[in-house]
Order: sequence, then structure tokens, then C-alpha cells
Amino acid sequence: MAGGKKKEVKKETGLGLSFKKEENFGEWYSEVVVNGEMIEYYDISGCYILRPWAMSIWEIMQVFFDAEIKKMKIKNCYFPLFVSSSVLEKEKDHIEGFAPEVAWVTKSGKSDLEIPIAIRPTSETVMYPYFSKWIRGHRDLPLKLNQWCNVVRWEFSNPTPFIRSREFLWQEGHTAFATKQEADEEVLQILELYRRIYEEFLAIPVIKGKKSEMEKFAGGLYTTSVEAFIPNTGRGIQGATSHCLGQNFAKMFEINFENEKGERGMAWQNSWAYSTRTIGVMVMVHGDDKGLVLPPKVSSVQVIVVPVPFKDANTQGIFDACAATVDTLCGAGIRAEADYRENYSPGWKYSHWEMKGVPLRIEIGPKDLANNQVRAVRRDSAAKVDISCDSLLEKVKDMLDDIQKSMFDAAKQKRDACIQVAKTWDEFKEALSQRKMILAPWCDEEEVEKDVKDRTRGEMGAAKSLCSPFDQPELPEGNRTPSYFMSWSLFSLLLLLVLHALLLESQQKSGPTGEGVTRLSALAAIFLNFHIV
Amino acid sequence: MAGGKKKEVKKETGLGLSFKKEENFGEWYSEVVVNGEMIEYYDISGCYILRPWAMSIWEIMQVFFDAEIKKMKIKNCYFPLFVSSSVLEKEKDHIEGFAPEVAWVTKSGKSDLEIPIAIRPTSETVMYPYFSKWIRGHRDLPLKLNQWCNVVRWEFSNPTPFIRSREFLWQEGHTAFATKQEADEEVLQILELYRRIYEEFLAIPVIKGKKSEMEKFAGGLYTTSVEAFIPNTGRGIQGATSHCLGQNFAKMFEINFENEKGERGMAWQNSWAYSTRTIGVMVMVHGDDKGLVLPPKVSSVQVIVVPVPFKDANTQGIFDACAATVDTLCGAGIRAEADYRENYSPGWKYSHWEMKGVPLRIEIGPKDLANNQVRAVRRDSAAKVDISCDSLLEKVKDMLDDIQKSMFDAAKQKRDACIQVAKTWDEFKEALSQRKMILAPWCDEEEVEKDVKDRTRGEMGAAKSLCSPFDQPELPEGNRTPSYFMSWSLFSLLLLLVLHALLLESQQKSGPTGEGVTRLSALAAIFLNFHIV
Repeated sequence: MAGGKKKEVKKETGLGLSFKKEENFGEWYSEVVVNGEMIEYYDISGCYILRPWAMSIWEIMQVFFDAEIKKMKIKNCYFPLFVSSSVLEKEKDHIEGFAPEVAWVTKSGKSDLEIPIAIRPTSETVMYPYFSKWIRGHRDLPLKLNQWCNVVRWEFSNPTPFIRSREFLWQEGHTAFATKQEADEEVLQILELYRRIYEEFLAIPVIKGKKSEMEKFAGGLYTTSVEAFIPNTGRGIQGATSHCLGQNFAKMFEINFENEKGERGMAWQNSWAYSTRTIGVMVMVHGDDKGLVLPPKVSSVQVIVVPVPFKDANTQGIFDACAATVDTLCGAGIRAEADYRENYSPGWKYSHWEMKGVPLRIEIGPKDLANNQVRAVRRDSAAKVDISCDSLLEKVKDMLDDIQKSMFDAAKQKRDACIQVAKTWDEFKEALSQRKMILAPWCDEEEVEKDVKDRTRGEMGAAKSLCSPFDQPELPEGNRTPSYFMSWSLFSLLLLLVLHALLLESQQKSGPTGEGVTRLSALAAIFLNFHIV
Repeated sequence: MAGGKKKEVKKETGLGLSFKKEENFGEWYSEVVVNGEMIEYYDISGCYILRPWAMSIWEIMQVFFDAEIKKMKIKNCYFPLFVSSSVLEKEKDHIEGFAPEVAWVTKSGKSDLEIPIAIRPTSETVMYPYFSKWIRGHRDLPLKLNQWCNVVRWEFSNPTPFIRSREFLWQEGHTAFATKQEADEEVLQILELYRRIYEEFLAIPVIKGKKSEMEKFAGGLYTTSVEAFIPNTGRGIQGATSHCLGQNFAKMFEINFENEKGERGMAWQNSWAYSTRTIGVMVMVHGDDKGLVLPPKVSSVQVIVVPVPFKDANTQGIFDACAATVDTLCGAGIRAEADYRENYSPGWKYSHWEMKGVPLRIEIGPKDLANNQVRAVRRDSAAKVDISCDSLLEKVKDMLDDIQKSMFDAAKQKRDACIQVAKTWDEFKEALSQRKMILAPWCDEEEVEKDVKDRTRGEMGAAKSLCSPFDQPELPEGNRTPSYFMSWSLFSLLLLLVLHALLLESQQKSGPTGEGVTRLSALAAIFLNFHIV
């Protein structure tokens, strides 16, 4: 490990990024997820390899969310990947949205299957026939299930790692209650968990609200969501959704029960999901021109310790100090590692771990050794500070907490600067041209939303409602524009559509399939909106 | 909750099992996994719903195994579900085994894909092209990855819940090393974890050993396994496998590296997996005519508390005592619940929780309340014992430990009684006719194993080698039968083949697909052997 022997130090090129976030966001994103070792592009278009650096983030969020829903007495299960066409097609609105993206298995080995079988794009129709079977009396309610699984949506437009892929990982919760009140309560409990994932773990501010009638899940009663925003693109992005399905699916799938008085009731249902998309949003919001920037709470390495040996210095002493530092931090539950590799220079290592977004770097050189200190460098701000070894643990803990908080605050400040209140149509158009997220009075009528969409359609797409925020500002007086905002009962966020037409063409190896089909019906748009979560 | 009010008590029929384990094992198994609420049959043949009662067992094992492999610095990742045919077919032996069972996606929506895409039956060929990309120098080694995922094998013969299903959950580890020695060591470390899952968690004795040349994973260097035994059927069952792949895949996929001296080396690889099959083996080994019997370590409810109110008794006091008991136990980390349902009699509840296999039942009635005690009833032995509330926690802990141990001991005793040492061909045939697991001298030559198979073929199938146990008895002198056991260097377990032709036809709803194809080549048999793990 140690020794004064001269080592060959590789000067690998290409460690940095060739694109800048501000200048070419799409290319920057493609590059940073690969160079940060989160993603490897795969030889089938729209499919991506989640490398351990990404998977560990998913797992940290999963541990949190899974424990929380278990407290709510929601139980994990596993339903099959496959669904027969007859069941898939039972709810007409539902299948209409999904149909163009469903992947079909038609062969096994060299034999044709008698009937093609679909791969689940989501599991409502997979599960609800069995809800019908299991629920008979009011004592069988509530039924609260969740599964962690993969789903497949064979989309053809602009696949993007994490954000829009043909296969992705998610959790999907499916619950049934005797009363609407219980369903309503759970919708918001789950939405709060989604807010916590974004704000407490990923350090991304989100807005909780209710989707418009046009944007809600087709077939459901109402949809709530957490909405994030990518300042660089001026586009909102749906973070996760928690739906109250009402009794529509219960009707289709005959999910009935006998209530306490012996009368026949129909179940109230919810479904809710978040996916690996969360990771993509995190990369987009926090990443910079040096690479990923990971919030400490989700980074599998929170502190990277780099020895900085000098000619003639006490190399062994430096390595020992690094090991002692890692021990101290790990002993207190901080995820710390040292990079002892001898064929890379300290400078190369700095760049490497900056690319991977590790929140805090600790450097230990001869001077530090002599002064019984270490040098700590923050990834988010590049701020450097010398820490005495005596207060190492306390200081590192404080810094990690502060990084987490600062990243959230910075993201919130940027996001807030992009919100524009518009009270007139002119203000609305002006804000839209500046790629703002617009807070405007809103009637929540479908024809009006369609009309807004038509009137705003341009190169970038068209305005689309994100949600009516639960946290409402006071209603403005005057300046009403009744043709577009027919009622003043709610505020809503409007912004550019075609979030999905986003981003990256490059780096995308063309796979053996998937070209040629275009489709974008209104229903498909709603589906996209809902189902990527 | 309480109150002396007369309640309607349902006498649901059909709570028991219609088949006995000894009399009709296949039907008994189908019934017990459904009535025990582990499995729901699905409308696609060979696919099953894993209900929370089964999923919780899978999760408990997963928490253990995942933590252990993380200690070994193995990292989780996620590779795509889909694999292109060109990559799948790269290793010829490999694809030859899998080809008949691969499910192919040929359509998305209404469009035909340009090239059909396979669903992974396992991920060697999915992963190794990227191993080749990521591994360049010796410092990139070892590369140690694992994923928890679903795989699909469209088998046509006798699907059986957990044991043989078209989709199943598993972990698959894939590792690469610079030296054979490191690979050899890991193979055994992983095998030891599999032994612990079976013996420490599922209370099932297994035999560790090495597969014969004929039964090893085609394309690999050698295969190790843990082998379990189902006394009722007289069939062995492969519990999990840990393979050393040698350098064969590295050659196919060009997984090369530059070693410390600047020379070109080729990686040594392992792959290893265990699946939800583990749960099926557990049901088969421990279940009885009253239902499931779950080992305490994997049961999501370890103790079920049942109030036994009597007319005029202090019902509220009994309910309070139940709640206090649950609190005490849960406070100490024991998974305890109370069944307060008012429309079921205590007797019905006893049967219900016996069917679900909960290891320990605690009953609290008026007499118990008066005496400051509870009555504890073991699921495994039906033994009843009164416990003073003062020593509740200590006694319950002891009983759970003892149940875990007793279940293992009982299973081991039964298993051991089925092992027969055979030194001559006559002894061998006699033992086989008694459905024993045979320990016999063994040469490990492929032609000999084929010949044994031919000569023993009958109604039940044919003899098949399970493994050469690592724990070898002393070699016997004399009675050699050189025509079958040409070398005396190893002992091996031989027993009936067609483990896969096992079991259940009933309860299997005929789905929309999957009938008609029969195939059983020698290679397919090897594949089955390996790949169901």
C-alpha cells in the first residue's frame, strides 16, 4: 500500500464532460449519467443498465418508503409480469391509453403461443380481478397491497435514461376501502411520503396538488401529484402520483362487499406509484459541469477520503490517517471510503469523485498529518475547510447536514425564481415565452385547457396544466380573463407541454427495434402524464 | 371490541384441507399453498400470485442474504429484462439449453418489432458484454454484481407454485476475478450462505456438494449446490447453485484485463442464484394435514394471540390482556399479533392460524386471566403449556427458538432416514425401489451416468446424480461394481430423476397458452437442473 516507490500515474483523458449544462442540457445529461457511472447504455434502444451507483440510491429510498408503508399496514406482494389480453382490455379508457405501448409475447422457443400475452405496463387490470375474489365482507377491507417491480412501456419517442425508458423499476400501491373518506386520507398520506422522498432525500422542492380534469388518470376519480421543475429546460416534471380511483374500477371488476348492515357496497380504490424517474430528476436538478452532485442522504458514499502523499513525505503515516478517518466516520454510521489506488494521482481522484458527485471529500497530506487535521471539500459549493482530527466526527456530521440543506435551499431558490404569477392572458403569454412555471387562475374545465393548449402551441410544445397546488395564494381581484380562466376558484400551475419530447437524441445507440411509430392522441398524452408517475 | 352482546359467529366450511400429505402429496401441496394464503392461481398457466404471506418470507430471507453479500463487497445493480437474440445466442451451449423456453416479444401495440426480443431466462449473456467493457486492468477486478429480479422460462410441463413457474423471483450474482483461487473461494462462501438460508431460516437440512460432469452447468467449469430432499415423494430437489464458470464465458465475451506485469489475462467468473423455489421446498418439507408449518425465523407472524371470551366472563379484561401480551412481545422484537375478529369463534381462529402455519398460538380465556397466565400452543408439535405472565417474554423466546430447532431436527431425522448407502448394484436398485436417496461410490464419468440412467428408467423416472457431498464418508472396501462406479474416489448421492415431472396437475387452471409442446433432450435436462437453481 505504502512505500516511496515511484508509481506509474495514469493521466486518463476524457474524465471531464464535453458538454455544459447551460449550453446543451440534453447532451450534458446523457454524458453525466454515463460518466458518473449510474447508467450504461444498452444494445436495445430505450433500455438502460442501472449500475450500482444508481441502484444504491434507489435502495436507500426504497428502505425509507417500504418502512413507512409497512407502518400504514400496507403489505408487499408480487403479481405476474404477464397479463392476458381479455383482462387487460376490461377497462376501456385504461387500455385505450396503454394500448400503443404494450409489449406482446407471441412466441416461446419456436412455437407460437395460442394467444398473445401482454407484459404489464401497470397492474390495475392484473390485480383487480383478485381484489374482487378476496373482498367479500367489510371485514376484508381495507385491502392494502404494494409491489416493487419492473414494468414495460414500449415508447418510441426520445428515450431518456431514468426519465423515459421502456422498462423501469417502481413501486405500485393498490388499495381498497369501504369508504371514500378512508381512500381520500390515504391518497394524501402517500403523497406526503412522495414529497418527503423528493424534499428530504433528493433535496428537490416539489409542489403538491391536484391534477386538472384533463390531466388526471383516465378512469380515476382524481389524481394528486408532486411536481418538480427543471430550470434549465423550463419544463415541469411529474414526480409521482397518488390517485383516488373512486369506484369506477370496482364497478368494472365487481369489487363488492357486504357492509355491517348486510347491504351491498362497492369498494373505493386508490393506486399510487413512484419510479426510478426520481433519480433522473435528481441528476437534472443538482448536477453541474463537473458531474453529478448527490445529496448526502442518498449517496452510497457520503465521504471519500483521498491520501495526498508527497515525495519524501511519511506516506505510510498518511495512509494510516486515512484509514483511521474512515474508521471513525463509518463507526458513527457515516458512509465513508478511502481511495488508495496508487496508479491515479490525487488530482485525478478529485475529478473522479466529483464526477460521481460524492458530497464531501477529505484530503490528507503531509501538512495535515503534521497539524493533526484533515482538509474537507464540499462538492456542492467547492468550499474548503480544515478540520482538526479531534472534532472530525462532529464537523463532518454538521457539514453533511448542511450540504443536504443547502442543496435543497439552492434548488428551491432557483425553482421559485421560475414561478411567475400571471393574471392576464398577456402576462401568461409573456411568462410562457420566458419558460416560466406559471401560477394562474384556473377554472379546471377540459375545453378551456384544450383551448389554452391550442393557442400556446409552438416550437417548444404547448402549455399544459401541472396541478392546482394545495397551498393556494389568495385569489386576485380584477384582470379576469374569462375566456381562459372561467372560474377563479383555484390557482393552477401551467407550463410547457412535451416534457416527453425532451432531451437526448445522442448517445442513444440505435437498437434492433423501436423505430417508426408515431402517435400522440390526447388520451395517450394523459396516459403518459399519469403513468410515468 | 368488547361487550357481552351476542355476535353472529360464522361457521365457514372448507377451512381444512381435503387431501392428506401422505396420501396425495400433489393435491395436498396445491391446496395448502392456496388455503394458507401464500399463492393465488392466476389466469395464465404457470404464473402465480405471491400473496403477502409468501412475500414476507421472501423478504426476510432477502434482508439476510443482501446484508451478507454486501459485507462481501458485492453490489446490487439492475440489467434489462430484454435481451437481443444476437447476444443471447453468443454462447452456443448456453442458448441450446434455454432456447425452447425463451419467451419472445414480437409486437408493441399493433406494430411488429423489426427483430424479436427475448425475455431473460437468466442474465449471463445480458451482463457479460458489459463486463467486457468495464474490465480493462487488474484494478477493475474483482467485479462483483448481484441483482434481485424476475426471470421467465416458458416451461410446458407441470407447472407447480414456487417450484416450477414460468416467471419467478430470484437473485443472480455475477462476479469476475483475476485468479481462479479467488473465484473458488467465493463459490464456497456463497454456497455457505445458501446452506444458512435453508438450515438456519427454513429449518431444512441440505447437503453441500459438487455436481457431476453431466449435471453441472453447461459451459461452466464446475457447479456446487445445496440439495434438499422431500421424503414424501422420495425426490431430491436442488436448493440453490453456486457455479464457477471458469474462463469459458470470458473467452466468448472477451473479458480480458492487463495484469500487474502488463500481460493480458482472462477473467475467472462465477454465477450463483437462489429463487422463490426455497419457499416451495419449505412448504413441502414442513407442512402437515392442518396446513402450513412455518419456521419462526421466516414467519411474518411468529405469535398469534387469540382471545377466548366466555359468556358472562370479563371480555374487556381478556381483550386488554391480549393487547398487553402483543405489546410485550412486539416490544422485544417478536412479531406478534392478536386476532380480535368478533364474527369468528376461537375454534375457527385456531384452525385459520394453523392453516397459515403460525409457529405459536397464545390463548387467553377467563381462567388464564384469573391465574395471570396465558396458554401457549405450538404449531409444530401441538404441545400446550401454561405460561405465567411474569415470565412471558423469556418463555416465548425460548419456545420460538425451540420450535425452530425442533423443526430442523425433525426434518433432518426424516431426511437421514431416507439416505441409504449402497455398495453393490443390487443394493443400489433395492434402495431406489424404496425411494431412498442413495450414497454410492461414484466415478463421475458422463457415459456411466447415462448408463445408470438408462438402466434405472421406470415409471417414476430414472436415477440422477445429485452431488458429490463435500462431507465424504470413508471409502468402503470391496464390493466394487466397476461397470457403474468406475472410480472410488468420491461418494455421490444418486436418486430418481424427474423431479420436474413432479406433482400437481390439479388446481391448475388452463390458461390461454402453453399447451402441447413436449421436449426433453439431455441438454434441456441439464439446463433445468441448473437454471431453476
